[in-house]
Amino acid sequence: AGGAERSGLPNLLILLMDDMGWGDLGVFGEPSKETPNLDQMASEGMLFPNFYTANPLCSPSRAALLTGRLPIRNGFYTTNAHARNAYTPQEIVGGIPDSELLLPELLKKAGYVSKIIGKWHLGHRPQFHPLKHGFDEWFGSPNCHFGPYDNKATPNIPVYRDREMIGRYYEDFKIDLKTGEANLTQIYLQEALDFISRQQSSQQPFFLYWAIDATHAPVYASKHFLGTSQRGLYGDAVREIDDSIGKILKSLQNLGISENTFVFFTSDNGAALISAPKQGGSNGRFLCGKQTTFEGGMREPAIAWWPGQIPAGHVSHQMGNVMDLFTTSLSLAGLQPPSDRHIDGIDLSPAILQGKLIDRPIFYYRGNEMMAVRLGLYKAHYWTWSNSWEQFSQGIDFCPGQNISGVTTHTQEEHTKLPLLFHLGKDPGEKYPISFSSSEYQEVMEQIFPQVQLHKKTMVPGEPQLNMCDKAVMNWAPPGCEKLGKCLEPPKSNPKKCFWPH
Amino acid sequence: AGGAERSGLPNLLILLMDDMGWGDLGVFGEPSKETPNLDQMASEGMLFPNFYTANPLCSPSRAALLTGRLPIRNGFYTTNAHARNAYTPQEIVGGIPDSELLLPELLKKAGYVSKIIGKWHLGHRPQFHPLKHGFDEWFGSPNCHFGPYDNKATPNIPVYRDREMIGRYYEDFKIDLKTGEANLTQIYLQEALDFISRQQSSQQPFFLYWAIDATHAPVYASKHFLGTSQRGLYGDAVREIDDSIGKILKSLQNLGISENTFVFFTSDNGAALISAPKQGGSNGRFLCGKQTTFEGGMREPAIAWWPGQIPAGHVSHQMGNVMDLFTTSLSLAGLQPPSDRHIDGIDLSPAILQGKLIDRPIFYYRGNEMMAVRLGLYKAHYWTWSNSWEQFSQGIDFCPGQNISGVTTHTQEEHTKLPLLFHLGKDPGEKYPISFSSSEYQEVMEQIFPQVQLHKKTMVPGEPQLNMCDKAVMNWAPPGCEKLGKCLEPPKSNPKKCFWPH
Ligand SMILES: [Ca+2]
Ligand SMILES: [Ca+2]
Repeated sequence: AGGAERSGLPNLLILLMDDMGWGDLGVFGEPSKETPNLDQMASEGMLFPNFYTANPLCSPSRAALLTGRLPIRNGFYTTNAHARNAYTPQEIVGGIPDSELLLPELLKKAGYVSKIIGKWHLGHRPQFHPLKHGFDEWFGSPNCHFGPYDNKATPNIPVYRDREMIGRYYEDFKIDLKTGEANLTQIYLQEALDFISRQQSSQQPFFLYWAIDATHAPVYASKHFLGTSQRGLYGDAVREIDDSIGKILKSLQNLGISENTFVFFTSDNGAALISAPKQGGSNGRFLCGKQTTFEGGMREPAIAWWPGQIPAGHVSHQMGNVMDLFTTSLSLAGLQPPSDRHIDGIDLSPAILQGKLIDRPIFYYRGNEMMAVRLGLYKAHYWTWSNSWEQFSQGIDFCPGQNISGVTTHTQEEHTKLPLLFHLGKDPGEKYPISFSSSEYQEVMEQIFPQVQLHKKTMVPGEPQLNMCDKAVMNWAPPGCEKLGKCLEPPKSNPKKCFWPH
Repeated sequence: AGGAERSGLPNLLILLMDDMGWGDLGVFGEPSKETPNLDQMASEGMLFPNFYTANPLCSPSRAALLTGRLPIRNGFYTTNAHARNAYTPQEIVGGIPDSELLLPELLKKAGYVSKIIGKWHLGHRPQFHPLKHGFDEWFGSPNCHFGPYDNKATPNIPVYRDREMIGRYYEDFKIDLKTGEANLTQIYLQEALDFISRQQSSQQPFFLYWAIDATHAPVYASKHFLGTSQRGLYGDAVREIDDSIGKILKSLQNLGISENTFVFFTSDNGAALISAPKQGGSNGRFLCGKQTTFEGGMREPAIAWWPGQIPAGHVSHQMGNVMDLFTTSLSLAGLQPPSDRHIDGIDLSPAILQGKLIDRPIFYYRGNEMMAVRLGLYKAHYWTWSNSWEQFSQGIDFCPGQNISGVTTHTQEEHTKLPLLFHLGKDPGEKYPISFSSSEYQEVMEQIFPQVQLHKKTMVPGEPQLNMCDKAVMNWAPPGCEKLGKCLEPPKSNPKKCFWPH
């Protein structure tokens, strides 16, 4: 049944959440236990409690996932200031460089049909369009669903079907900011079910990248789910997503292709604690959240599911990263990763299919700086920063209720000579730095230092893409706007350095 | 098979942990996922994410469990100072009053044979001996396994078999404080397996109260488990307990009595964060720990297991309390709770066996003060206190790494007129007090105030048992010491008020 079986290659389905935290799943200890479908997915598949993103913010995380490379290599970072997170707001001039090879581009060689549903976030100008980077189909938006805007100073974000826009958020795709009601997850679900069902009768295997955004502020849920959660609106959004994922997995089973489809669930960055509790999720016991390189910012919920191939109910202690989805997907498609560039993602299939453990470091970047590194159970902070005193004094707190002296610092603190070391097994909350004078510290740092040295020495940063902003590049007149009578007049070009406060 | 089947009454098995936190189980999101047996117990039984203790300290919690009554009723509290936790150290003069009716006393009427294995903690003087309060057998100790002591100023804690001591901790029952090695959990396991197997061929149903203490500082594990956890020594202790519980459940199955045995797993109070990470566990995302009336101090891991009777893999949102184990056990034994006194515990069997939800408040006490109350998803703090500035300045921190302004206060703050209100569904970490001026606050407090008023109005405090201390009452010469040549000379009696700093 389906192209996957005929080709002998598995379908690939990546379910990527937006700002969902490690602690938002019942299986990771969310006390309301409101994710029965995801919990069941874990009990039928493999749970990864040690899975990371490559950056604690949307755009660089997604660029890393699709290229298998750290943002500092693929250009999804800024050099405007030290260690600043950057992304692709409407004003951004840059986007994913043509020189980068994206997963769907490479999968074409093995005959895959690829679709992205949801948020692209790798640049919205014409040259960055997902269909120019390997995707065959798209339903979704190039940027976050912020807004509504006034369409004079800032246009509402367009929603695309394939090459052209078919409407705009708030105008044609409503989000009620007061009630939180929006039908978008249902639309994204239907898009997924339609694509899967269409591909089932095709000769080609598929890659579906389901990058929905209901858990990114402004958080939304459809009417049927509003008020159903013990957790408020954020929980309603999670429940709707959980329900949708249940339906997607069920459809794979009903179509008889679940044993030919590799499914991976994860999130792009930690929960946005600045928006919690109404508009933000939970990172469980981990420190801080989105924007930071503490565990709360970068450790992600992760589940692999592939009935008949992945043993049911296993927990893997393998350290993983969203970049591994690039390499693993290629491997499952029988392809080699590009050999002309450094690929950071590793092939997790031995971990997933044979329960092996692969030794590898995790590097925690914020913009152009390697802030921390994890090796085995140890994590060394080379730099610490939550956010600036200026921002903090304005009420912006990336670590609400948490305050660990010398760790959650409000100035950028350099520890490169004497990194702060934590044992994440004993101390997942990064509360108890290991004494500098202990033999444990000495022994562990002797392992870490050379790995970091090698990493830094061989690092060739890409051209930073997220330095320049210009109001003229906003989504004034995306392709298709004429048909809809929705073209807007851009202002004069006035490029300047983007301001990245975090 | 066994007395349970013959009598038609189920065996009762309470697995009570010591200082184990909500967040110590894989099923509650411990990232190392090192509790496969407990996680499986949950998947075969019913998980209670909203289960509480009656007091955030050992002795009062255990007194409440065995009497079904709040410590302020059964006397397990102090009036020496306001809102202080008190327990039964060796110097304590008091213990469980004769006037209290304990679960095993009542179960006798239905023909149960009762055994306590492990820590009693309801008083160590002769009149408080568990065999004088309904238990038929005992293997364990009357107090915490603190020490070792010098046997001149303070004797080591005795270990009893039934009526007499058979040795002392550190002398005859070794705990290596340096390595953490001790064989005690294996001994307690064997005691449980022996008792269960013996009862299987008996005419009477049994009540086994397995009150082990490996996760109470000083934490210990046997050689086979040392160094096996990602979490260090504390994790080793948890792994050994998890393994032991797996063996106990397996033995019930092998003996053919699992369908006649109601098993309940929980803990006596939240994880002791002052001892973390080496000697203390985790309360997950909850605030603070042992000694406090924040969720971290009083919310407990809880699993009910009874194959064939309890539906597998269910999560119950029922609010429960250790005191309910009293009433529920009586109910399962076909008995009524005493009608001549107020019983706080409710019969959870409709929740456990039929999935019903029973409305009920949870009262959070610290000593003689009702600090907080939970009603539905809301919790109102009438008093807040973590610990005193004096203690805090000495490095004693019940909320390490956590600091919530106006909530984790270091002075006793009264909010009885305008309680601090939290929504535990949206905000399980008690970080975001609901605005006093909101209609939500008004509406919720209108529900809470009368319940609290009624509770306080009808409260008849028992005679406080934990006020007086005297070195002369320590375990100098417990029964059986003569045979062992282990009797020690008590000092002259000099009773004075105990000092309870927390
Ligand atoms: Ca995001
Ligand atoms: Ca305890």
